[in-house]
Amino acid sequence: MTKISKASQTEKQQSSRRDFFRKTAAYSVSALAAASVMAPVKINAEDDPAIMEEKKWGTTFGYPVTHNLYGQPSPYEHIVTRRNTKLLSSGNYYASIAMCPIHESMGIITPNGLFFSRSHGGTAEIDPNEHRLMIHGLVEKPLVLTMDELKKYPSVSRIHFIECPANGGPEWRGPQFPSIQFAKGMMSCAEWTGVYIKDILKDLGLKKEARWMLAEGVDNSHMGRTIPIDKVLDDAMIVWGQNGEALRPEQGYPIRLLVPGWEGNLCVKWLGRLEFASEPFYAKEETAKYSALKPSGKAIQHFYANEVNSVITSPCPDKPWTDLKKGDLVEIEGLAWSGMGTIEGVDISFDGGKNWVEASLKGLVLPKAWTRFSFMYKYEGKPLLLSSRARDDAGHIQPTVKHEREVMGVESVYHRNGIFTWEVTAKGEVNNVQVLS
Amino acid sequence: MTKISKASQTEKQQSSRRDFFRKTAAYSVSALAAASVMAPVKINAEDDPAIMEEKKWGTTFGYPVTHNLYGQPSPYEHIVTRRNTKLLSSGNYYASIAMCPIHESMGIITPNGLFFSRSHGGTAEIDPNEHRLMIHGLVEKPLVLTMDELKKYPSVSRIHFIECPANGGPEWRGPQFPSIQFAKGMMSCAEWTGVYIKDILKDLGLKKEARWMLAEGVDNSHMGRTIPIDKVLDDAMIVWGQNGEALRPEQGYPIRLLVPGWEGNLCVKWLGRLEFASEPFYAKEETAKYSALKPSGKAIQHFYANEVNSVITSPCPDKPWTDLKKGDLVEIEGLAWSGMGTIEGVDISFDGGKNWVEASLKGLVLPKAWTRFSFMYKYEGKPLLLSSRARDDAGHIQPTVKHEREVMGVESVYHRNGIFTWEVTAKGEVNNVQVLS
Repeated sequence: MTKISKASQTEKQQSSRRDFFRKTAAYSVSALAAASVMAPVKINAEDDPAIMEEKKWGTTFGYPVTHNLYGQPSPYEHIVTRRNTKLLSSGNYYASIAMCPIHESMGIITPNGLFFSRSHGGTAEIDPNEHRLMIHGLVEKPLVLTMDELKKYPSVSRIHFIECPANGGPEWRGPQFPSIQFAKGMMSCAEWTGVYIKDILKDLGLKKEARWMLAEGVDNSHMGRTIPIDKVLDDAMIVWGQNGEALRPEQGYPIRLLVPGWEGNLCVKWLGRLEFASEPFYAKEETAKYSALKPSGKAIQHFYANEVNSVITSPCPDKPWTDLKKGDLVEIEGLAWSGMGTIEGVDISFDGGKNWVEASLKGLVLPKAWTRFSFMYKYEGKPLLLSSRARDDAGHIQPTVKHEREVMGVESVYHRNGIFTWEVTAKGEVNNVQVLS
Repeated sequence: MTKISKASQTEKQQSSRRDFFRKTAAYSVSALAAASVMAPVKINAEDDPAIMEEKKWGTTFGYPVTHNLYGQPSPYEHIVTRRNTKLLSSGNYYASIAMCPIHESMGIITPNGLFFSRSHGGTAEIDPNEHRLMIHGLVEKPLVLTMDELKKYPSVSRIHFIECPANGGPEWRGPQFPSIQFAKGMMSCAEWTGVYIKDILKDLGLKKEARWMLAEGVDNSHMGRTIPIDKVLDDAMIVWGQNGEALRPEQGYPIRLLVPGWEGNLCVKWLGRLEFASEPFYAKEETAKYSALKPSGKAIQHFYANEVNSVITSPCPDKPWTDLKKGDLVEIEGLAWSGMGTIEGVDISFDGGKNWVEASLKGLVLPKAWTRFSFMYKYEGKPLLLSSRARDDAGHIQPTVKHEREVMGVESVYHRNGIFTWEVTAKGEVNNVQVLS
């Protein structure tokens, strides 16, 4: 393992660059347009016999428009799917997680069929006509809403990521998975449609003693989590739409809570009840679980926001560089995200964090949403320690693994956002490593 | 039918308001937050027995995470699907169209399973390993690319609508469909990932005589269309990704052309060939079809951009107001789009175009993308003629039906963008009508 420069120095360098790279929440202007990737010239059948072949799909009808009206991806894409492992399934697949193939992600939208899914008691299949949402506790007018009544509120649509706070959690003590899908796939990003809770509360009248909100699911795990009132009144939503259609059952159909940027498990699925109170509820899932054990032996209980983070999605163990030749121009691509604001910039290191260069942000740059970064690289066939380091407009920057361990030790499960590093071998193979010094 | 004020007057009013409402391409600030929709108070089992029932999904495991890894919408959403009609299918379902349920759309992303689909010879099922893209004609270095080679170019992701120019085309002579899905569902909007053609052309060297580009598909219809070089070099893309996954087969897997904002059929699916030339190609599909017959008997051949347009999606015949009571506050919602720029504003009329009020834009406002508009309305149970009128930042505004007919007659099929009107009856039923005077 290589030594890296100290976090304090790099943070100082960053703070002076922060204003310069400040961006608005719109399409980012990237430096990509300058890149030139010349493919081998093949214009004769001797170069590539496939050029001259008339394929069967050029001479026969395809399937009619009446076939499979909802549709599926091409059978040739069957390898792009959610995946699970017994290691993260507590011995069964009811309380389990299906991870997103983020190495195959494109843009910032994850299709609903690939959106990561976690449940504590299996996927409930709810009849929306039977479903009710109760809102009570410290409000003037407690209320029970049918789905039709809820949907009468004016809707809003926002693009946000959801990340399980345990994303990367099995790797506090060291690399576990030779795969980005298993190492970082407990997250996805979508356009959500629903209603701000603050808008419903205008009708109900929140009492001024209300400091906390319990959200509870009606599935058999009756998942319960408590949210501070400031966040509820900022941007918490009840959502029924995901990427332009109803939530999928595994995402909480007919409704879930969305707490933008905060721990995925706060986004309670199959949502049935919101209760306002003056004290936290200390529900099962926020005492035994979803608290962070520190080196002192004490645990942090109330922490919520997914900190600024990033990972390089290409190359990665699932998508190595073994087919590259020296001199090839290749795009290094990755995802950055922050539950505390908007991604402001991402740096890339080729030597495990000694030196950094600025990557381009590309596409939409939105608050609490996946943000894609890119760097055009001339491949030389040399071994690399390839790292990314994101910063957000709230002033946060990813810590080194060393710094993260100093603060949190290695006994926690949640909220890992230390700088992530891939080892690229001389052959272009990619391994999951950690730079410790 | 009611009389409406003349188009020249309304256009004059609009031009002075245009600068005032100019918006940046980011989340639009809407006036919705002020709305209050009080639902009936139900807090006892006598009010709603469902409140007190423990449902089966609260006491039994749901399905495990290993079940149906790609997934499907809830069975309770089976009614939300693409639909087709023999009327638009030339007697078979190979050369046909599946229309998008836009009344159920949310936000600006259409999920891939609901994205409208049109083909001229069925859906080709292509093996991407066998697929080749040939780029030739007036370029210095003609080239054939495999999919792997194509994907080495740095990718970009953009949210754009695609609209068939025949969207609404069966209704030039008068209303046909008591349904928004059939009347306006030949369009959808997605996040597309691929490469700008201008970036590939840097490697190939475009000759200066090149004025047109032919795009041709490898499916059995061998769909061919010609695109002017200015548009090719502006923002035309070859795309392989849609909403974060590979294109679906019915969208052209493994690649299609994307010509943002222009006629959907220019976005050639199952794309196999691009040829650059000094003259247009006059392909089959741009002579017999996709030309616009004028009252003079002559046809317009080279017209491409989908003009500024809008439609109210709620209420509509598929989603009427029959469950409303007098005094209810209800959201009027709709979609606006322009192939020539960014939506700047949308007005709503309750009297078929005599008087107009400004709607709010909500969510992301992006160029050549669906843009959602909203207006909170106090329902009074009175008959209405409910119209929407969009304008874009290129200075265009939707014409009246009268004005559109004066220019184009009623014999064309394509490019209808006259102001669309719903008749709302005193009972809240919604009918498809046209205001002619």
